[in-house]
Amino acid sequence: MNILSIGSVAFDSIQTPFGKVNKALGGSATFFSLTASNFIKTSVVAVVGKDFTLKNQKIFTRKNIDISGLEKAPGKTFFWSGKYSFDLNSRETLFTHLNVFKNFKPKISAKHALSPFVFLGNIHPILQLEVLKQIKSPKLIGCDTMNLWIDTEKKELIKVLKSIDILIINDSEARQMAKEPNLLTASKKILSLMAKKTDRIPPVLVVKKGEHGLIMLQGKKFFSLPSYPLEKVLDPTGAGDSFAGGFFGFLAKTENLSWNNLKKACAYGTVTASFCVEQFGTKALENLTVTQIQKRYQEFKDLTHFELTKNK
Amino acid sequence: MNILSIGSVAFDSIQTPFGKVNKALGGSATFFSLTASNFIKTSVVAVVGKDFTLKNQKIFTRKNIDISGLEKAPGKTFFWSGKYSFDLNSRETLFTHLNVFKNFKPKISAKHALSPFVFLGNIHPILQLEVLKQIKSPKLIGCDTMNLWIDTEKKELIKVLKSIDILIINDSEARQMAKEPNLLTASKKILSLMAKKTDRIPPVLVVKKGEHGLIMLQGKKFFSLPSYPLEKVLDPTGAGDSFAGGFFGFLAKTENLSWNNLKKACAYGTVTASFCVEQFGTKALENLTVTQIQKRYQEFKDLTHFELTKNK
Repeated sequence: MNILSIGSVAFDSIQTPFGKVNKALGGSATFFSLTASNFIKTSVVAVVGKDFTLKNQKIFTRKNIDISGLEKAPGKTFFWSGKYSFDLNSRETLFTHLNVFKNFKPKISAKHALSPFVFLGNIHPILQLEVLKQIKSPKLIGCDTMNLWIDTEKKELIKVLKSIDILIINDSEARQMAKEPNLLTASKKILSLMAKKTDRIPPVLVVKKGEHGLIMLQGKKFFSLPSYPLEKVLDPTGAGDSFAGGFFGFLAKTENLSWNNLKKACAYGTVTASFCVEQFGTKALENLTVTQIQKRYQEFKDLTHFELTKNK
Repeated sequence: MNILSIGSVAFDSIQTPFGKVNKALGGSATFFSLTASNFIKTSVVAVVGKDFTLKNQKIFTRKNIDISGLEKAPGKTFFWSGKYSFDLNSRETLFTHLNVFKNFKPKISAKHALSPFVFLGNIHPILQLEVLKQIKSPKLIGCDTMNLWIDTEKKELIKVLKSIDILIINDSEARQMAKEPNLLTASKKILSLMAKKTDRIPPVLVVKKGEHGLIMLQGKKFFSLPSYPLEKVLDPTGAGDSFAGGFFGFLAKTENLSWNNLKKACAYGTVTASFCVEQFGTKALENLTVTQIQKRYQEFKDLTHFELTKNK
């Protein structure tokens, strides 16, 4: 089933201890759709400026991504620059030029409004709510957010939480949102903020822990994975969005929202994110194939599973 | 097969954000043997002082632990006091009174010298080497160490590494030992310091990451587990030793050193450590049953495993 992805398309200038890249294609909707499109047809709703080139556009269309919802506005594309620390665990924003993104009001076409799978990338919670109003009969709504909105727009964000099915955030955001240091306790608190029941599925929370893997909760159910082991991480930019793309893409393709399938989705997300960070920007995702994903998924299982035993 | 455990038996005074305990039984050989004894007969070689009571002794004998190698020396038992930070991720040593431990020279009896499974708890590398000289025909030698010896006794420590089969350390120790921030790269470096081949098994390295689980390497093989999820951790003291006890106890019981069985051993160690930290000192381990361990082992599998899939 098709996915509709709302978020940012941007240019990123990135420095890591392993190199740098200037004005590379980035943004949450970019990383998400490049990943999800390995599983299922994905449409992007975002805004770009006049400096968005045909070459940039081809990065999407080569993956058969529908960019009919990619608005071209007068002005320049959202431009972000960041520098990562020695161990890649923290980053400093050098500048953020919102440009055309400042006035972004996602307009959902009649066709896109019928999308069964909707992923709300990290944009202002009020915009996320406005998108949701335009969606006709979703089967699954996923959502990301960031520390800024947790700080400044908590009330609107909680409205979003009550309207969605799956929240995908990182560990520091979870602790901040719940004001609680124990990650498991924090996660349960956040889950209790989400809708008690929808006509879709009981709310799901996925908390990403970077190099330490993830946890997932739904009701009283709990799941945990380590990360895929990588010796060479060149650029962590887009890891979260490419996790979400793999996770959501697999769910949309299989149309199966059971707990067992959600677990598999976590493993797919882990695998797609692991490819993303092995190269700068979107480079790894542009050439990623389904065969590579499947191969690493199976390897990941071997690397993390142990057998049951009757030994005492 | 029997296990011989060499290490410390101590008194611990511990403060955590959740309470405190005064002069509780502790020490590496204590936590290790209390855990390993759920799987297999375990003998302890350590030293205590005159203040070691019959009540202390019964904590061992109730678990059928052989304490014929527990030397009683004139003076007081090793006494350590520490205070944990708010999030339990760091601790401050308030005092360390080595007492009788200062002159500890492990003497291995003729019977104990025949032990097939030997675990060298964290003591001076020169003492670890002296123990190894006294062992007749080991089937498996495990070993722990600490930051102090990595700093001050690197040369002797590397001799130890070349004589053992399984090194179990934590992530900061691994980074320190290899002088390398990437944990995977650091682990490979350490593995290359260990003996290339013994008449036993190819060297194994287990790196514990606390609440973030563990990684294990042997040759080119890699394995990773998250931790068992706990909302209430009262006291992390002994977590590492009770991991080692579960890990080594399971291997000794099953007498199976295959990669698949090593993976299971990692899961057993994770489970036994998870019980340890739920209460202060040895309290949880004193009453731990095989049935509880088995139950949590199976739960742990459900919490961390995903299925293979043919979906693309």
